[in-house]
Amino acid sequence: MIEDKNTSKTQLSDLGEFGLIDHLTKNFKIQQETTVLGIGDDAAVLDFKQKQCVLTTDLLIEGIHFDLSYVPLKHLGYKAVVVNLSDVYAMNAKATQITVSIAVSNRFPLEALEALYSGIETAAKIYGIDLVGGDTTSSTTGLIISITAVGHANQEELVYRSGAKENDLLVVTGDLGAAYLGLQVLEREKEVFKVNPNSQPDLDQYTYIIERQLKPEARKDIPQLLKALEVKPTSMIDISDGLSSEVIHLCTQSNVGANVYEEKLPLDPTVISTCEEFKLNSTTVALNGGEDYELLFTIRQEDFPKIKANPNLTVIGHITDQDSGIGLVTRANEKIRMTAQGWNPIKE
Amino acid sequence: MIEDKNTSKTQLSDLGEFGLIDHLTKNFKIQQETTVLGIGDDAAVLDFKQKQCVLTTDLLIEGIHFDLSYVPLKHLGYKAVVVNLSDVYAMNAKATQITVSIAVSNRFPLEALEALYSGIETAAKIYGIDLVGGDTTSSTTGLIISITAVGHANQEELVYRSGAKENDLLVVTGDLGAAYLGLQVLEREKEVFKVNPNSQPDLDQYTYIIERQLKPEARKDIPQLLKALEVKPTSMIDISDGLSSEVIHLCTQSNVGANVYEEKLPLDPTVISTCEEFKLNSTTVALNGGEDYELLFTIRQEDFPKIKANPNLTVIGHITDQDSGIGLVTRANEKIRMTAQGWNPIKE
Repeated sequence: MIEDKNTSKTQLSDLGEFGLIDHLTKNFKIQQETTVLGIGDDAAVLDFKQKQCVLTTDLLIEGIHFDLSYVPLKHLGYKAVVVNLSDVYAMNAKATQITVSIAVSNRFPLEALEALYSGIETAAKIYGIDLVGGDTTSSTTGLIISITAVGHANQEELVYRSGAKENDLLVVTGDLGAAYLGLQVLEREKEVFKVNPNSQPDLDQYTYIIERQLKPEARKDIPQLLKALEVKPTSMIDISDGLSSEVIHLCTQSNVGANVYEEKLPLDPTVISTCEEFKLNSTTVALNGGEDYELLFTIRQEDFPKIKANPNLTVIGHITDQDSGIGLVTRANEKIRMTAQGWNPIKE
Repeated sequence: MIEDKNTSKTQLSDLGEFGLIDHLTKNFKIQQETTVLGIGDDAAVLDFKQKQCVLTTDLLIEGIHFDLSYVPLKHLGYKAVVVNLSDVYAMNAKATQITVSIAVSNRFPLEALEALYSGIETAAKIYGIDLVGGDTTSSTTGLIISITAVGHANQEELVYRSGAKENDLLVVTGDLGAAYLGLQVLEREKEVFKVNPNSQPDLDQYTYIIERQLKPEARKDIPQLLKALEVKPTSMIDISDGLSSEVIHLCTQSNVGANVYEEKLPLDPTVISTCEEFKLNSTTVALNGGEDYELLFTIRQEDFPKIKANPNLTVIGHITDQDSGIGLVTRANEKIRMTAQGWNPIKE
């Protein structure tokens, strides 16, 4: 779909590395006062004054993390930024800068990279972050994207994974499992396309779940909302590998256990109907789906009244002592041990 | 050379992503007081107090930036760190943290990654920096390394590319061209090996230039030396793509011209003798070789007495007005226009 068969397209080699960087980044504007210097020197310069700086990075590889046969490059650029910002928000911090490094093979014309960067630029505008550096090089095969995100917060505002205490409430934002189901729909359509390239899929009923897969949003609003509600979570993590995996991370690092209630898991109606269509268990999808980029956090019980009316937040369980283990309490009121079956990027 | 033919070696999939990260990073110690939290949460937390933070990143791809048929993985890990630190020192800043992301295909056993990380660890110890994050994933082919380096400095200590003024002296650290020649020797030996795998090369005479290629050092000492000498450069850049390319960058960003004197270019005796052997022009090699990771900077003329006795520093020219252009003054006293013929990672 993005093979360079149109010879009128611009070859990357015509621009060279520095010309390419200039061309791709010329529309980016500096928005953050913490950015002293962006692209153009040996390093970016940032000034966080008395605040603490948070730093996180992700590496995305074509054929492992994304499939360009159904992921538009603009969406990919947007998503690549968003998944990094999600980690900054999961520290209860403000995201302010990113660096973007890409490696591309010759099959990518300039127009493909322009599409990718237009997605990155859209995310930068919407989330109010500055692109301050990166690297651009060739690859032997495919597209590689490495993004580092930076943010800041006052020391006392930062929320770690390790602060959950017994009896705290376990809260999740948004709903679960939709991104995974969106991927299943896209994979199915790819197979249909292979058999009959002329088929015109009607995906209207899947709009929400496909958008959750192709164009997820990070919860920039949650640190702001929690501040407005005067709630400081005791621990927080973002949900990238599936709820189960993240509950286990949070409990392990806090030396606690947890009970998660199956009946409390927030599911969009499209998730329920699509699970039925695909003959999937919606609880399994919610627990292990991954790529939701929602936030999972714990609060003290006394803060419950402050959050209970909020439609963005769902209490899904509570923290127990470590010896009680990490369990899912089913609708039949049985407690089963929670295991991480999320996506593993290191596999055969 | 690193194909996993020995079935007793450990498959990466046996460990999983989090097990792998734990295993590879367990020996790394936090050394910097600016590191509040390293690996293990959604993001690292750093505290630079009143100092400004510098941030730089590089992406290294097997088959483009390195050839594992003659680059030992431990050396590669070391070099990958060093080339990023070089950019931090080029801001006249102190390097303090790195993140390391890697993607590997199945042909890499655990032992290969252990070798890579032992090089990273050695660099971290020698340069006194903390590994505070990263990402570990699969690739469809080959090894990909993405490193982000962080450092800090007082605002008034930072040196940008843009500060060079007319009549400033142009100074380079160390010597030039050796890393490029080391690569030529290694490439030649690879060809010999293809023809006769039993040949035992005697590379003793090339020790210096091969080490400059395989195990370069970043000039951590230079910001410290300049501080001790009470010299603040007016501009600075690191030499990764060749002297010509970096002189042009520095002049372009400072809106000035420069004269560089051929007879002043610092060359190691091994560079001169190897150039003769390879029938290469040593000036061309010094100007365009790349990967020297020395620093190029400008100082006010009045600071010359403070640096002139120092064997680490060579004055190679001076800054002129912009209209005079950027030229090389040859031994025959002809001025020729300097062009950047350095390595271009975006090519056919």
